[in-house]
Amino acid sequence: MVNFGYSNCKLTILLAHGMKIGDKHYRSLWLEEGETPQIRYIDQAVLPFRFETGTLHTPEDALLAITEMKVRGAPLIGAVAAGGIFLAAYRSAGKNHQETTVRKWAGKLKQARPTAVNLRVMVDRMADHVLNAFSPESPEERARKEYMKILEGETEACRMIGLHGLEILRDLHRKTGRTVNILTHCNAGWLACIDYGTATAPIYLAHERNIPVHVWVDETRPRNQGARLTAWELQQAGIPHTVITDNAGGHLMQKGCVDVVLVGSDCTTRNGDVANKIGTYLKALAARDNGIPFYVALPVSSIDREMENGVRNIPVEERSGEEVRLIEGLDGENLVRVSILSEEHPVSNPGFDVTPARLVTALITERGVCEATEGGIASLFTDP
Amino acid sequence: MVNFGYSNCKLTILLAHGMKIGDKHYRSLWLEEGETPQIRYIDQAVLPFRFETGTLHTPEDALLAITEMKVRGAPLIGAVAAGGIFLAAYRSAGKNHQETTVRKWAGKLKQARPTAVNLRVMVDRMADHVLNAFSPESPEERARKEYMKILEGETEACRMIGLHGLEILRDLHRKTGRTVNILTHCNAGWLACIDYGTATAPIYLAHERNIPVHVWVDETRPRNQGARLTAWELQQAGIPHTVITDNAGGHLMQKGCVDVVLVGSDCTTRNGDVANKIGTYLKALAARDNGIPFYVALPVSSIDREMENGVRNIPVEERSGEEVRLIEGLDGENLVRVSILSEEHPVSNPGFDVTPARLVTALITERGVCEATEGGIASLFTDP
Repeated sequence: MVNFGYSNCKLTILLAHGMKIGDKHYRSLWLEEGETPQIRYIDQAVLPFRFETGTLHTPEDALLAITEMKVRGAPLIGAVAAGGIFLAAYRSAGKNHQETTVRKWAGKLKQARPTAVNLRVMVDRMADHVLNAFSPESPEERARKEYMKILEGETEACRMIGLHGLEILRDLHRKTGRTVNILTHCNAGWLACIDYGTATAPIYLAHERNIPVHVWVDETRPRNQGARLTAWELQQAGIPHTVITDNAGGHLMQKGCVDVVLVGSDCTTRNGDVANKIGTYLKALAARDNGIPFYVALPVSSIDREMENGVRNIPVEERSGEEVRLIEGLDGENLVRVSILSEEHPVSNPGFDVTPARLVTALITERGVCEATEGGIASLFTDP
Repeated sequence: MVNFGYSNCKLTILLAHGMKIGDKHYRSLWLEEGETPQIRYIDQAVLPFRFETGTLHTPEDALLAITEMKVRGAPLIGAVAAGGIFLAAYRSAGKNHQETTVRKWAGKLKQARPTAVNLRVMVDRMADHVLNAFSPESPEERARKEYMKILEGETEACRMIGLHGLEILRDLHRKTGRTVNILTHCNAGWLACIDYGTATAPIYLAHERNIPVHVWVDETRPRNQGARLTAWELQQAGIPHTVITDNAGGHLMQKGCVDVVLVGSDCTTRNGDVANKIGTYLKALAARDNGIPFYVALPVSSIDREMENGVRNIPVEERSGEEVRLIEGLDGENLVRVSILSEEHPVSNPGFDVTPARLVTALITERGVCEATEGGIASLFTDP
């Protein structure tokens, strides 16, 4: 088993904040090599009620893990889809149909969820390496190496996002001299982003550096990734937090209980519009109305530099109404799924919304903090 | 049984929209006279999973029905609290302690829920009539008469709100020539407001007059009054509707799917700030950001003419975290309450938020439509 990274000194930070479950350290995704390589993941669909890991043997497993949201969060689904291409290349090794197989799965995996841009970027990157590289290595070996580079790259990106975002939290603490109250929506934590998280990375680092923080966690209907995943992560890390309904954030901002909003992103357009979990836009509006900074933390791989006007152009996934109708919880010791809304009522369930760039204070990326403008984003790609 | 109102021609309208449950017509609250008068109500805590009525025999029953939210919605809790005073007067009839009893329950009932202003207005009005009137009638008889006046007055107020609001929907339909898409939050329907509802009254009337309407129903966490009550009401009335999470409204507005937002109010201050169910403020912000009119429908009894600056001054009830942690639904045929969040996580659960007057297009009251300004509100009380 190559549970890579744990021997890497760069990763010692993460060991302090919530990756240790029981006696074991976990990433949200890792590669187990051996006779038949397989990809392991933490099953986010059953957390926090159960802690289970799953195994991807085939590209189809990867596709299903994404569509069934056993794995979720833009960076993670990009990495899982990339893993799907690795598995496609590996399982068709030495066969005539290897190229066709990789192309087929690249097409399928890119369609798995329409809003996230990393998914397409990572799949294309993998497919390019497998299909087009001039190298004495086999396609599957090229796939393996590129896949490991992707995992390491994403982890490092999150670590750098954390370091850049840390300065923002440190400044807020300096300014007020008291606990920094952060509001976050959905889960942009290490579960969603392999190791450090994007939006939560600065929070973990601040906590480690004894900057007092407290996190307002939006429960994030319909799938409650805030209540189920972010709250669980923060608790594992011993970070003070309070769970609230998605409705409560505006009121808390009016009452001066929020110093900064910090969220992730599934897709950011070249002009700085940001797609993130449905409801993010409402929090951005409330932050603006109350003079509270609203930051988006994201790896540059999630920026779509071709696309302008995200509000108009980012495709927003319409998900099943069952996610709204059914909710999972504990009835005594038993985990059950109960129906909270009769099937007689139609439901609409858009998965994301788009926050216009004008409401975004700045983007926090692994390459630094920039304005959510065309110029700001261009600077990420041109600065030395 | 005096199921008053059904013989009243003014009330024929309501019979068409959802008050008929099975073969029987219902109001959300009614008085049954007889040897021992009692107040009956529809139990909103078990809808839509069960349709049950409850009975108030004592002022304590009234208090519990309010605090346990078997009855909810500002106009309705005002009427139930008024009923509590009637029961206090009735049950202490002829006793020396009648005055003390009425005073004691007036104090308790006014504290039952801190945000709603009708509650205090209605209790004071009842207590004044019982304690201070110069009349040959007994205190309990005065209480009964005043209580019936309150019920009739609230019903008539809702009907007039409906008629005034109807013109707004009619104009929107004329302008676009297509279905009017209305977004509403929580339940300001007949369940909450005795007969017609406040925010829903114009919708019922428009539907009756063949103005095509479709309602986006915010589920309204934590107690899901939108999904549980508003959706149920609209379905009973055959009005097209779609249930959404509280997070989805901003996105729908960006996409041009919402023509108007229509909500109720628990307390409106003299300058036009509006307290309503938590999350309303976020929808008002989104409506403003997308150039969509945002109307608040309310009886004038819910205006606090003494209070200025609602954002600062309206007391917002902090409710139990259990409302967020536990959710009720059907597991097969069984209604169960499941835990969706472990007790290890702190929860904050403010019940209301305050929408600043500047975000409100207009107030729809039984006395007409007015600006959400000090002048607009004053005109309700001074115009001929």
